[in-house]
Amino acid sequence: MAVYTEVSDTDLGSFLADYGLGKLLAYKGIAEGVENSNFLLHVEAGFFILTLYEKRVSAADLPFFLALMEHLAARGLACPQPVKTKNGAMLGMLAGRPAAIVTFLEGVSSRRPTNAQCAALGAALGQLHRAGADFDSTRPNALSLAAWSHLFDLAKDRADEVKAGLSSFIADELAFLEKTWPQDLPRGVIHADLFPDNVLFLGGEVSGLIDFYFACTDFLAYDLAVCLNAWCFEPDFSFNVTKGMALIEAYQGVRKLTREEIEALPVLARGAALRFTLTRLVDWLNVPPGALVKPKDPLEYVKRLRFHQRSNSARDLGLML
Amino acid sequence: MAVYTEVSDTDLGSFLADYGLGKLLAYKGIAEGVENSNFLLHVEAGFFILTLYEKRVSAADLPFFLALMEHLAARGLACPQPVKTKNGAMLGMLAGRPAAIVTFLEGVSSRRPTNAQCAALGAALGQLHRAGADFDSTRPNALSLAAWSHLFDLAKDRADEVKAGLSSFIADELAFLEKTWPQDLPRGVIHADLFPDNVLFLGGEVSGLIDFYFACTDFLAYDLAVCLNAWCFEPDFSFNVTKGMALIEAYQGVRKLTREEIEALPVLARGAALRFTLTRLVDWLNVPPGALVKPKDPLEYVKRLRFHQRSNSARDLGLML
Repeated sequence: MAVYTEVSDTDLGSFLADYGLGKLLAYKGIAEGVENSNFLLHVEAGFFILTLYEKRVSAADLPFFLALMEHLAARGLACPQPVKTKNGAMLGMLAGRPAAIVTFLEGVSSRRPTNAQCAALGAALGQLHRAGADFDSTRPNALSLAAWSHLFDLAKDRADEVKAGLSSFIADELAFLEKTWPQDLPRGVIHADLFPDNVLFLGGEVSGLIDFYFACTDFLAYDLAVCLNAWCFEPDFSFNVTKGMALIEAYQGVRKLTREEIEALPVLARGAALRFTLTRLVDWLNVPPGALVKPKDPLEYVKRLRFHQRSNSARDLGLML
Repeated sequence: MAVYTEVSDTDLGSFLADYGLGKLLAYKGIAEGVENSNFLLHVEAGFFILTLYEKRVSAADLPFFLALMEHLAARGLACPQPVKTKNGAMLGMLAGRPAAIVTFLEGVSSRRPTNAQCAALGAALGQLHRAGADFDSTRPNALSLAAWSHLFDLAKDRADEVKAGLSSFIADELAFLEKTWPQDLPRGVIHADLFPDNVLFLGGEVSGLIDFYFACTDFLAYDLAVCLNAWCFEPDFSFNVTKGMALIEAYQGVRKLTREEIEALPVLARGAALRFTLTRLVDWLNVPPGALVKPKDPLEYVKRLRFHQRSNSARDLGLML
């Protein structure tokens, strides 16, 4: 969590002149997200978030992300709403980087989600999928099956530095997923990174879904699998099936899973676990000197993956048939 | 700039239960200061700053800093005001660290101070010294003359890695300052670190002085010397005497310098430049692996020091006699 780019008061002043938000009262760099630089802005119109997009986010994808947030917010989803300049632009340049202002959402993310929070998240995920159903832009998932073998190529020679046998463990899993990955499930816009730090709660309700910078078009049930992994394992990496039930049941309260999705869920959960194993592994092996961000432990996702390898049906994940 | 300690929503909730600030609505880690972890808190009572004190700040000094801020705020100085718990305590424990809540101040710090901002700062510094005159706690300056030779001991063998000849340059300066450092000038509570990032402006006025965690009892004119160094050099390290004049004149508009202080000013400016050369040098040579903070360049202060070595009178710093 870091601020990568500093913004001077004068540069920010000229940037804000294009918006109808009134005078700048205060701004603070905030430690949010690991990809971009974020600032909390206080202007006469209220509180907002200013994001400067750093190089890990492709500038070509920014219009997709911003249009998506605008689309979802217009359909009542609690997500950041991009603020437009007087000329109607959602994206500008600040300190040499693409930059956007979005609304500030109240709420606090949960470090250790409760059963009730897993249920609230499940319903919010269903609403996200429903609100996104008529969004007509698409963006391929740059971190899906096709990408995993490329990520593995970057890490396989050194994976055993992290844990003996890790390289062949991943190679076997990759071979399994290449054989079994579903071809045809309901698709749509997914968040793809809906971890607890990207969900804000206020008084037990979801008050905000944030950080849409991995959003893409993929299987809707894959998004559910990402959430089951991120929300329903306990700190000792045991799967809490009560939380899984709460999440899936609340999701189905908004959007019913098809029979094919239910059958695919265990494989999707394995794939979701492998995706985060791989990205974390590559980051872990490539921490630049003087890095501002502490890499996350890839083995936390290996442990999740081992659980899914032993499970055979969506029932093990909390689905009630 | 970083957040060193993460705080969970549940820990923060119990911490806040001791205060009469209402429910937690949002909190964000902010990139402010290099010594502590800071969070912007939104609670029903408004916006506040929560600080967790990390190990570089001595817990024994915290009551001094907090009492000082309370004293200064009570005398109308624009500085953070510690918020008390229902039991009247200004200091608690959170995530294993001493922690305090202070008021949030609007305003924006200036990356490149203007003449007018130097004048506003000079007046604010005078007001700080006046408001502190009847503050009865004292704290020795842990980074004054006596400490400099200890700091130098930590760095002298490796100083020439930063620049050839730096070690003997510092040794000579230290010998000079040990001979010429004033013995008896007006003393009082000083900020000791009033850099531009610790001063907030709103509409041309100083709206806040922040970060009192180097505050101590020392020569008042030393505080002025620190500010002349931090505010009146241009990016090419030339001294802008117009800014110096603006700063000193506005300071004297609130508190007149004595003849002895005026005579001592060039030596104090050299000492202030050496103090930041030394602390930056020690940090530069001791960046821990995985450091979250990029060290500041000690040579920026060597350049300031060289200017002061060539000047002989407070007139060179902008004093009008």
